[in-house]
Amino acid sequence: MAGNSFGGLFRFTTWGESHGPAIGCVVDGVPARVPLTEPDIQHWLDRRRPGQSKFTTQRREPDRVRILSGVFEGLTTGAPISLMIENVDQRSKDYGPIKDQYRPGHADFTYDAKYGIRDYRGGGRASARETAMRVAAGAIARKVLGDEITVRGALVQIGADRIDREAWDWVEVERNPFWCPDATAAARWEDLLGDVRKRGSSIGAVIEVVASGVPAGLGDPIYDKLDADLAKAMMGINAVKSVEIGAGLGAAELSGEENADEIRMVDGRPTFLSNHAGGVLGGISTGQDIVVRFAVKPTSSILTPRRSIDRFGKEVEVSTKGRHDPCVGIRAVPVGEAMLAIVLADHLLRQRAIAASHDQP
Amino acid sequence: MAGNSFGGLFRFTTWGESHGPAIGCVVDGVPARVPLTEPDIQHWLDRRRPGQSKFTTQRREPDRVRILSGVFEGLTTGAPISLMIENVDQRSKDYGPIKDQYRPGHADFTYDAKYGIRDYRGGGRASARETAMRVAAGAIARKVLGDEITVRGALVQIGADRIDREAWDWVEVERNPFWCPDATAAARWEDLLGDVRKRGSSIGAVIEVVASGVPAGLGDPIYDKLDADLAKAMMGINAVKSVEIGAGLGAAELSGEENADEIRMVDGRPTFLSNHAGGVLGGISTGQDIVVRFAVKPTSSILTPRRSIDRFGKEVEVSTKGRHDPCVGIRAVPVGEAMLAIVLADHLLRQRAIAASHDQP
Amino acid sequence: MAGNSFGGLFRFTTWGESHGPAIGCVVDGVPARVPLTEPDIQHWLDRRRPGQSKFTTQRREPDRVRILSGVFEGLTTGAPISLMIENVDQRSKDYGPIKDQYRPGHADFTYDAKYGIRDYRGGGRASARETAMRVAAGAIARKVLGDEITVRGALVQIGADRIDREAWDWVEVERNPFWCPDATAAARWEDLLGDVRKRGSSIGAVIEVVASGVPAGLGDPIYDKLDADLAKAMMGINAVKSVEIGAGLGAAELSGEENADEIRMVDGRPTFLSNHAGGVLGGISTGQDIVVRFAVKPTSSILTPRRSIDRFGKEVEVSTKGRHDPCVGIRAVPVGEAMLAIVLADHLLRQRAIAASHDQP
Amino acid sequence: MAGNSFGGLFRFTTWGESHGPAIGCVVDGVPARVPLTEPDIQHWLDRRRPGQSKFTTQRREPDRVRILSGVFEGLTTGAPISLMIENVDQRSKDYGPIKDQYRPGHADFTYDAKYGIRDYRGGGRASARETAMRVAAGAIARKVLGDEITVRGALVQIGADRIDREAWDWVEVERNPFWCPDATAAARWEDLLGDVRKRGSSIGAVIEVVASGVPAGLGDPIYDKLDADLAKAMMGINAVKSVEIGAGLGAAELSGEENADEIRMVDGRPTFLSNHAGGVLGGISTGQDIVVRFAVKPTSSILTPRRSIDRFGKEVEVSTKGRHDPCVGIRAVPVGEAMLAIVLADHLLRQRAIAASHDQP
Repeated sequence: MAGNSFGGLFRFTTWGESHGPAIGCVVDGVPARVPLTEPDIQHWLDRRRPGQSKFTTQRREPDRVRILSGVFEGLTTGAPISLMIENVDQRSKDYGPIKDQYRPGHADFTYDAKYGIRDYRGGGRASARETAMRVAAGAIARKVLGDEITVRGALVQIGADRIDREAWDWVEVERNPFWCPDATAAARWEDLLGDVRKRGSSIGAVIEVVASGVPAGLGDPIYDKLDADLAKAMMGINAVKSVEIGAGLGAAELSGEENADEIRMVDGRPTFLSNHAGGVLGGISTGQDIVVRFAVKPTSSILTPRRSIDRFGKEVEVSTKGRHDPCVGIRAVPVGEAMLAIVLADHLLRQRAIAASHDQP
Repeated sequence: MAGNSFGGLFRFTTWGESHGPAIGCVVDGVPARVPLTEPDIQHWLDRRRPGQSKFTTQRREPDRVRILSGVFEGLTTGAPISLMIENVDQRSKDYGPIKDQYRPGHADFTYDAKYGIRDYRGGGRASARETAMRVAAGAIARKVLGDEITVRGALVQIGADRIDREAWDWVEVERNPFWCPDATAAARWEDLLGDVRKRGSSIGAVIEVVASGVPAGLGDPIYDKLDADLAKAMMGINAVKSVEIGAGLGAAELSGEENADEIRMVDGRPTFLSNHAGGVLGGISTGQDIVVRFAVKPTSSILTPRRSIDRFGKEVEVSTKGRHDPCVGIRAVPVGEAMLAIVLADHLLRQRAIAASHDQP
Repeated sequence: MAGNSFGGLFRFTTWGESHGPAIGCVVDGVPARVPLTEPDIQHWLDRRRPGQSKFTTQRREPDRVRILSGVFEGLTTGAPISLMIENVDQRSKDYGPIKDQYRPGHADFTYDAKYGIRDYRGGGRASARETAMRVAAGAIARKVLGDEITVRGALVQIGADRIDREAWDWVEVERNPFWCPDATAAARWEDLLGDVRKRGSSIGAVIEVVASGVPAGLGDPIYDKLDADLAKAMMGINAVKSVEIGAGLGAAELSGEENADEIRMVDGRPTFLSNHAGGVLGGISTGQDIVVRFAVKPTSSILTPRRSIDRFGKEVEVSTKGRHDPCVGIRAVPVGEAMLAIVLADHLLRQRAIAASHDQP
Repeated sequence: MAGNSFGGLFRFTTWGESHGPAIGCVVDGVPARVPLTEPDIQHWLDRRRPGQSKFTTQRREPDRVRILSGVFEGLTTGAPISLMIENVDQRSKDYGPIKDQYRPGHADFTYDAKYGIRDYRGGGRASARETAMRVAAGAIARKVLGDEITVRGALVQIGADRIDREAWDWVEVERNPFWCPDATAAARWEDLLGDVRKRGSSIGAVIEVVASGVPAGLGDPIYDKLDADLAKAMMGINAVKSVEIGAGLGAAELSGEENADEIRMVDGRPTFLSNHAGGVLGGISTGQDIVVRFAVKPTSSILTPRRSIDRFGKEVEVSTKGRHDPCVGIRAVPVGEAMLAIVLADHLLRQRAIAASHDQP
């Protein structure tokens, strides 16, 4: 209820501020005897780590994750798994005017409105640094899902520049600094983002995450539908402003005939001939790919001064001189993947709880 | 967890199938001494009721709501409020092939996959009939919010035809059968939908719901952000495929300069000069209007046959001969309003729980 | 959170006041395809019904339960099950001074303190009438548990008069109006309670409920231990003042040697040689009988005047002239059984969620 | 749901095993701007620390608590508070036969039954070491309660030897190694426990915890009654076998006349003349002292060999040679206090959420 936990049966709670001594999370509800090591988690953290190209912040976080509980001799025990990353970058420094100013687009104003106090150092709790723990929890969720379910993500749009979906190549995603599945688009974005960065400006983006191999039957109607939980999971990521499932917003423009995903028997199995539904009908997975897209607003920290006020009601101009990501959407790709894996792991466990009775009427 | 409840402190649970004896809900967590009568709720149900124009189904549901508990001498008592509507339309009839067929776009296939059984009468639990109870719960939520917070909705797009936002007039919304705020668009839609209906086809739509007068400070970071809960609330409505906050998907195409909502002091109060944020920053309300949009897919029940299978794996063609809404998005407007009111009422109570300490340091 | 729901995966919510139009509950999380009919539930309600002997109140409640949703063609569907009992006894009448007085031992004073309003008719929400819905939900829980798990209860003490545990006979429990397993004690209690009743007085009691056939492994350490959830379940029953597991309070007087439940292999299976633990170790079931006892205070409504105040702060004397149970503990037996079945059903489903992975390392 | 969290609005999650690298907890839902420092928490941990007399284990745990998040410049920020204690005692050693044996009275057997794996080092997650984090969370709960609510505990019985309640003196509680409020009893216990310890035996105990200054109105009927939540809180403490509120088990032996807590107006305020209710009526606090008692079984680890089996089904004899507390009940006193404070803090916040409307009808 207090807001720092996510999930029902597979449930995790994160803690820590951007410039505090550490960040961490506790993952509860993981079944016992799942193999798990620190490198299993570190692998996904390394993919997320900023500073790997000139298009993401240069903060050098080694982000070395430690497992503090819940794993014994390489296997989970059913006890809560505590993960921690120490903030090596944490140092006392002068935060200057940022201490009292409300940066437009940031949560400074609202944190003060809600709590009457604000840890202004590096954005405190509202910093995207928190998402490292989502990626860590997502790594455990992947273990729960097993090898037959794969969760992948890609950047499909920067600004108004969309990829060519016909050119989609998952291999390409790992080859460019944008997680872009279209090599040609990636080349264009190199120029586009370089220009944005030079101007000290920023730009939005759209991410698509996809899960394959998900069995039919996951999701709890009416209010814990699989797509409803996915919408909550994605909209809760920093800077996200929209979430779509399958045809998404485009579904509004379709006719019933176009939108229908017809079904045939192929090799003796029900097979959908299209996937406008994005793998979810009535809030329950169909067995098709789960397809989720979300839009990320442009980074709020920019060079051009913007008008604002400070906490004393004094009018000020705010501009950000330090280094910031020109497009925070890039770093959101591994976070979106993690949240998708987490929602699926949670619903997989939920379904196990009630599924056994099918054969016991 | 089992999926039929929504909310934390203001929490309701719905029950009932489309063709069962009744539908109902239990609303728990309502503060005591809130004035509440059956007409207070009936008012909003009547707005939602189908069969009020040729563009919504002709099922004649009087939808007479009864309060069975939790209210004493016109005031809530703090006890759970039980609401019930009897299904007068409920009668034994021959459901024919629908009994075993999986209608494309419906939840038939997935309910069978999940539960191994399906109440096929009128869509059972997956029917939009369930949304009547959301509207009823929303009526109570409005009482909790009080008169200073208003929640309104409108249809802003049918198919590819968008309203002119400059022509927005809330008064017009109550004057046409589409909840359309733009009189010119409403006239166009009359023709557009009439044509769709005649062809036995269907079409999607986009709804926008807005809350005004919401105080700054509502929402619980990190995972129960106000916008995350709104995304879950809206995506959980039948047929919804996307949810947007403020600039929404369009934010992807903005630069940081464009997207920034600048702040000035006006009449001694912090005032935002624009609202790309949709009234939410860092998951917490800013005091501006909360603006949420969601897209509804076209009605899945159409006249043109679509290919599918039945539960025995036999290939079939499915077409719907009976009357169905050509655009389910119309009926989703009051439902979206209700869900917005519910999310806000919940977060208002949550904020009260922690706010008192601000002045006790 | 608002207090009218119980359980995690098997979860029910009750509603209704003693003298309102009806009482009911919604049971969510029941797996699909469990056979369920109204008589299955009515059977257990009839056992609980008051007015069956001179030792319980004479209110004639037919208590006819209806299933309003969630069951189709005799099987559960996975949708929420709504149950309702109409209050035929409900009639407008003059409640006289009780309207404003705080009856000692009742919740009148505290409901006013908490809610600032009170439905005084028949005790409103605080009436033991609410427990009928626990028994109804318990009947569904028994179905989920299946035939191999049996849940039974008995009255083991009235006032200071205890049964002879050597004389325990489950068959005898159904033969006397006290659910007493010791025929000799039942005969004594006939006199004892007859005397209490004649004097318009009342007396406390101790109930023991036992579940057999429970598999080892149910319960979620650390805070959702099986015994912790049972303690919450029993302490939440009206008038209960203590809960014990196994040796219970008596464990305080034992030495470690006496308290140890030794284990041997019998017929190739681990077998405990005693059960001081009451079937729970470390919060997890051992496979032995689950043994829970709880004490019920004497009925607060008595003939002898007691000093109190009314809601205006005026000092008054309160005495109850109407008929009331001389020992509410008797009626608590079926309620305790129901709560035990409910807790076990909930933990059985929870365990299924995580158990599957044991064999998939 | 997974069991390692407690509370609704004031909610904490603990993690860590007895011999892992650290233990910790995350406390969420703490209002902002509550003053909090590490010494505030350390104070209560020091009271709990074992090894302070010959009657508790000699493990030398400095138990130095660190605050890792949620506090800024000496005040809480509303963000989750992460606490950690490193396990300095943690070292690789030979656990010998304990690795595979099921110690009677311990959770070895049931953890294996539930999880199919067990961290046998020092009892793993089932160790009483976990309770240190309850005490830490309880220290924060006390801060939320403020100075006007005091929470205290005492040992009132060891084995069959009860204190003289007439001799109760809270000052004495801090003067002897038993938290005994009766100096004469404390002297007797010195001998009693010395003897138990020499024989390598153990003995049970009863603890009483009391909260004063609690306002009337806390607790959520029907299923989250204040006493129901207290029962869950106390029964969930290691080795607890019974929980009582007010007159408790003794209420069974009272008549209605004896049990009634009469009310008079004293100094213009409603005043109860006795407290058999233990400060709770209908699940809601009355404003009187909240009085809870719980019984702790004798330490399971004793010198005398007991019969058991190992995980391979081989019959063995188990005896404990190392040092163990002869009476674990002693160490349970600060833990019971902490859980009482936690339950009250949670319900205080819950009440704030709904109380504001009293004056706004």
